[in-house]
Amino acid sequence: MKILVQKFGGTSVATLERMQKVREKVCGALNHADKIVVVLSARDGETNALLRLAEQWSASPDKAECDLLVSTGEQVSIGLFAMLLKDCGLRARSLLAGQIPITTDDDFGCARILDINSAALLSFLNQYDVLVVAGFQGCAKDGRITTLGRGGSDTSAVALAAALGSVECEIYTDVDGVYTTDPNICSTARKMDRIAYNEMLEMASMGAKILHIRSVEFAQKYKVPVRVRSTFTDDPGTLVTQEDSTMEAVFVSGIAYDKDQARVTLHHLPDVPGVAAAVFGPLSAKGVLVDMIVQNTSLDGHTDITFTIPRKELKPTLAIMQEVAPKIGATEVLHDVNVAKVSAIGVGMRNHSGVAVRTFAALTKEGINILMISTSEIKITLLIREKYVELAVRILHDTFGLDADRPNRPCPA
Amino acid sequence: MKILVQKFGGTSVATLERMQKVREKVCGALNHADKIVVVLSARDGETNALLRLAEQWSASPDKAECDLLVSTGEQVSIGLFAMLLKDCGLRARSLLAGQIPITTDDDFGCARILDINSAALLSFLNQYDVLVVAGFQGCAKDGRITTLGRGGSDTSAVALAAALGSVECEIYTDVDGVYTTDPNICSTARKMDRIAYNEMLEMASMGAKILHIRSVEFAQKYKVPVRVRSTFTDDPGTLVTQEDSTMEAVFVSGIAYDKDQARVTLHHLPDVPGVAAAVFGPLSAKGVLVDMIVQNTSLDGHTDITFTIPRKELKPTLAIMQEVAPKIGATEVLHDVNVAKVSAIGVGMRNHSGVAVRTFAALTKEGINILMISTSEIKITLLIREKYVELAVRILHDTFGLDADRPNRPCPA
Repeated sequence: MKILVQKFGGTSVATLERMQKVREKVCGALNHADKIVVVLSARDGETNALLRLAEQWSASPDKAECDLLVSTGEQVSIGLFAMLLKDCGLRARSLLAGQIPITTDDDFGCARILDINSAALLSFLNQYDVLVVAGFQGCAKDGRITTLGRGGSDTSAVALAAALGSVECEIYTDVDGVYTTDPNICSTARKMDRIAYNEMLEMASMGAKILHIRSVEFAQKYKVPVRVRSTFTDDPGTLVTQEDSTMEAVFVSGIAYDKDQARVTLHHLPDVPGVAAAVFGPLSAKGVLVDMIVQNTSLDGHTDITFTIPRKELKPTLAIMQEVAPKIGATEVLHDVNVAKVSAIGVGMRNHSGVAVRTFAALTKEGINILMISTSEIKITLLIREKYVELAVRILHDTFGLDADRPNRPCPA
Repeated sequence: MKILVQKFGGTSVATLERMQKVREKVCGALNHADKIVVVLSARDGETNALLRLAEQWSASPDKAECDLLVSTGEQVSIGLFAMLLKDCGLRARSLLAGQIPITTDDDFGCARILDINSAALLSFLNQYDVLVVAGFQGCAKDGRITTLGRGGSDTSAVALAAALGSVECEIYTDVDGVYTTDPNICSTARKMDRIAYNEMLEMASMGAKILHIRSVEFAQKYKVPVRVRSTFTDDPGTLVTQEDSTMEAVFVSGIAYDKDQARVTLHHLPDVPGVAAAVFGPLSAKGVLVDMIVQNTSLDGHTDITFTIPRKELKPTLAIMQEVAPKIGATEVLHDVNVAKVSAIGVGMRNHSGVAVRTFAALTKEGINILMISTSEIKITLLIREKYVELAVRILHDTFGLDADRPNRPCPA
């Protein structure tokens, strides 16, 4: 029995006409798969409308009640779509998370999936050809409705594919795949046929708009092949999958960037143990996501600590640092919002020295000053002045031969 | 442990301001009850909006999927209201029908309640002071969501009260109780302090706007005292309860009317066995609700059959009768839409002869011709010309001493 999981986002189910398009996709897929599990999001704007309602009703809405409320968005989608399927004679039915169940912890608003009853799923698949499952929602052990957080429908789809034995999971969206970089700023950007899970994770700043990070982690953990493709074309899209040797033949597979950055520096503080904890402990407690961190080598027993954060976190971060600085003996708290991050990403980087050098050289040649550097096994990230970001993306895209007229990443033999 | 069930309809939960009013009612009730079970409808207009959506999506929406869709209306109400309760520090939570469960059959769209897990309810009441339950919905044995049909939230409330041991059930609405007749056409109409279940059932044409018929049947069966009262005043409303001797001291307790009537006559058909079945069988099969039926005594081996139906059923009914008439030998099918029904209702009628006579005499005196008569143990119904209906209501209201300046039905000793 060949099973396929297909997930459609909010824009794909927003209107009757679009749902009819989705139905075409599902009917088409039944030509090459025996059974389809369709995962749907709430119709575009519905989740936000429900959240606005909750905020109107309460200054701090109870999280469990909020999940009960917000989960109605997906319930409406699956009811309507199942009607459409039944109308054309398909053996189909809707399934709420609690009817399978998809069991989660009780961390309302961002619950984690603990278990999916795959025996029940298979039994439903014996009775029906298409199951229409509500994305984004789960069910705590006591039967209360939970939600998985933003982008949770992607996670639902991948988890269902994993529960059914790593069947392929198609994530339909309004773009036709993952690109080597943002086509809006680099006209030579190329759609990739394949990308490794790790690369997709590192492409977060661009990829997160296409595929939710947690769903990629989930897919990687359970080895679920995920195909990102468009509801509105027949393009095969981009397959997110395990890396293999053909992928490693390419140094760099994509260039990412992120303008939502602010830089904070604690100046001239004593280089003694416990300083980093004193700085980042309070930030973590307030839920501020710190991204790059650089601490210079101590020269005179004093050092600087510089880190980046999302811009909207700048105000609370500075408030915390003004408190922390005197305690740890820093003389000054500096900040800068005119910065941006550019990254070169590729699983091939591991096997090829010199990627970092080529990156620095390419930017330096164009007179772009590098403010901070951070490296991981498969990523090099540079903080630069924001005004240079588009230029830097184009330079790096060209430097690593990612242009559209070059051959795409080879398929494995 | 004193438990109270309170049900609030769509108009009472339509806006934040109104829900805050409802919260006041609930908090007030906690002064004289230990625990409250609140049953809510969907916000005004929501259920119809969801049904319109279903009709837009499908010419004949799948009933099970439609129930899944429509039940979101109540889910939104209970989530929002539970938030409000928690905001003022109450130990409260929402409950979907499936979380209790309220088990029904699988007659989607008009399911019947089979069982309520009262042990689970009591266990929830040990943890919480207020339970906010979604009305109108149930859960089939296989876990699918069902709905109880129009007005089903009243039935939910009464059934929950019955499951908790016939505790009082308050049905809040936008009127302050049940009146002796429609105050809009009879200025002397009086709010009743008490009314018997049977009377409430017979007052259908007026009462149905206040309290759903099935909920009254349910209340009568399980002896649940139901109090109809207004969300927007402090009036104690009308108690719907078992009849007792004080009630029987009053001949007639209310005058009802119904303008939504059409009359159909099958003329001059052979008076042989099986004729009635041949006429009403096909109507029943099409779901046409036949109300009054009169068959004249046979004179020459031929008879007339006359019956009334809701006006919107006239066209399909005539179509069926045109088919049936030749088969059973009727010479003609006649119809009339300018008719209306007036009823005098009272449990006291059983013990007092002469009510029918007084009714006929009062109308005749004013020159109102009686077209059809139908009687039950506690009701006399007359079909008259529609133009006389307001006049007839006022005459009968006066004839049986129901005017506002007379004393209300006495309370039992």
